[in-house]
Amino acid sequence: MAGPKQREYVVAAVGATGAVGEVLLRVLEERRFPVGELRPLASERSVGSRVRFRDQELAVELARPQAFDGADFVFFAATGSLSKELAPEAVRRGAIVIDKSSTWRLQDEVPLVVPEINGAAVEKHSGIIACPNCTTIGFVMALEPLHRAAGLKSVVVTTLQAVSGAGRPGIDELKAQLAAPTRAEAPEPTVFKAPIAHNVVPLCEHFLENGYSSEEMKLLHETRKIMGLANLEVSMSCVRVPVPVGHAATMLVETERTLSPEAARAALAAFPGVELIDDPSTNRFPTPADVEGRDEVLVGRVRRDLGSDRIWLWQVSDNLRKGAATNAVQIAEEVLRRGLCE
Amino acid sequence: MAGPKQREYVVAAVGATGAVGEVLLRVLEERRFPVGELRPLASERSVGSRVRFRDQELAVELARPQAFDGADFVFFAATGSLSKELAPEAVRRGAIVIDKSSTWRLQDEVPLVVPEINGAAVEKHSGIIACPNCTTIGFVMALEPLHRAAGLKSVVVTTLQAVSGAGRPGIDELKAQLAAPTRAEAPEPTVFKAPIAHNVVPLCEHFLENGYSSEEMKLLHETRKIMGLANLEVSMSCVRVPVPVGHAATMLVETERTLSPEAARAALAAFPGVELIDDPSTNRFPTPADVEGRDEVLVGRVRRDLGSDRIWLWQVSDNLRKGAATNAVQIAEEVLRRGLCE
Repeated sequence: MAGPKQREYVVAAVGATGAVGEVLLRVLEERRFPVGELRPLASERSVGSRVRFRDQELAVELARPQAFDGADFVFFAATGSLSKELAPEAVRRGAIVIDKSSTWRLQDEVPLVVPEINGAAVEKHSGIIACPNCTTIGFVMALEPLHRAAGLKSVVVTTLQAVSGAGRPGIDELKAQLAAPTRAEAPEPTVFKAPIAHNVVPLCEHFLENGYSSEEMKLLHETRKIMGLANLEVSMSCVRVPVPVGHAATMLVETERTLSPEAARAALAAFPGVELIDDPSTNRFPTPADVEGRDEVLVGRVRRDLGSDRIWLWQVSDNLRKGAATNAVQIAEEVLRRGLCE
Repeated sequence: MAGPKQREYVVAAVGATGAVGEVLLRVLEERRFPVGELRPLASERSVGSRVRFRDQELAVELARPQAFDGADFVFFAATGSLSKELAPEAVRRGAIVIDKSSTWRLQDEVPLVVPEINGAAVEKHSGIIACPNCTTIGFVMALEPLHRAAGLKSVVVTTLQAVSGAGRPGIDELKAQLAAPTRAEAPEPTVFKAPIAHNVVPLCEHFLENGYSSEEMKLLHETRKIMGLANLEVSMSCVRVPVPVGHAATMLVETERTLSPEAARAALAAFPGVELIDDPSTNRFPTPADVEGRDEVLVGRVRRDLGSDRIWLWQVSDNLRKGAATNAVQIAEEVLRRGLCE
């Protein structure tokens, strides 16, 4: 028995051929997002390549203002400069932009959204809704349940980030270096600032004047905005590791009220989008290999710090899915659920 | 003009064919340790294999009590159980034992020594001197200069540890998994509790009843003993990474008196055995690939925490050299320098 036909939407995807763009198309399919027409867009050099969506092969067209005519949603999974230039053009044409770049995230009038945490923030959008950095999303997904349970005071975090956080060029650089017969014969680093195969690199993105990396500062500022905690103390070190997909982090969390490891585990397990995998007695803990291809943020090794009331935990998430494409599609779903796309 | 002939010593090396044992022989050569006779020893299954020392090939003999007759120094780079059984036998025969296993480290009558930090502790030995865990050595080498400059209060550390920390079997397991054409075809993990190729694993060694790994507890207790700070707060997470050689760590250090990043850098750079590689403006920082084959502990990314007076830093050390063989030979040199081997 067929119900009334659901409205379908014109969806454009800028950066459709990139690492995140490709996963975005898969996630739109899997979640049965009501796409009536899909427009895969990209910058000049990818025009003419083809992407698959549902059972069709679609030609990639140039990302330019006219390509947004009649679009309801435009996902940007491209460079910040492309988003800066083109997102306002899409908004001007009546589309809602969901942007994965860092360009708009900290603008006051732009909601920065992880739907499980601050879905209601989409209500206040002025055309652009920002999706947080991949590292931030796994981080706040593990923090929010503890915050709701006991109030968050501070957190010390070290991330171990996959190369796909730097997009397809990051994946390709690791592959090429791993394929070299010896380290001396490996291609010179270009995406990363040191060899990444058989190595770890204490720099994600680039350094700022204050000695922190841009990635580290995103983790601080985006977390404060998403969680609505303007003074939250975040102490952070971001490290790149030779893993294709799946960001991991160690987190030492201080709460306002004492939280037992058992209560922390219960709060995490009950939170939508978080899965607890935590049993030292059977060596059960999550790793990047376990989370690849999944939407849940996996948490384990929840334990009391030995010298304080703080809680240690270990967290992994698929940086291309919940860290990017899945979260972006969830934002669009939130917009529909709230009737914000007439 | 030849000086008076220096006394030479009979040196036995238990575990001479292992990852640490092999490096131990190289370090004894490089540092011109006054070896008159070298006896490479091992358990049953390595007997008969051959090792190189100076220009000779030597047959590996069985590690048994009689093999220590007449030995001045016995290095143990073997399993804890072999050390537990045989170290007292070597001591009974008049040798000084320098042990790399965890068996004796926390015994009151056994000095636990990093010569740059507590070299004088060797004076109080009763036959056995313990060499700390590889992870501990890099850690305390970076902490001690800050402690001397401003008094140490607490430290939060996340380690990223190379597979050779688990010896040759760890190296072999990573290699075999990396060589597999696909993840599904990779050999099952045996040394580590999850696949280590293209992955990171939040468990080093094994879990204890309190939810911490044995590796993490070593870091706490050994650090307190070496530095003579019985109440030092150490908050620690140890993670295995797919790197052959070179342990890394992020460290957030709280001092009694405020220490500027500049003063911290100066203290680190001036400390023997530590080298500072730290210039964000030119993307200079140390990585495991830089430290492999070196004896110095390399430190970089020294910066002020954004919400407190604490200091962040990044530290790497060669776990087979300064983390094991080099430190063991330095202990023997300290014994000679202090005239403790008559």
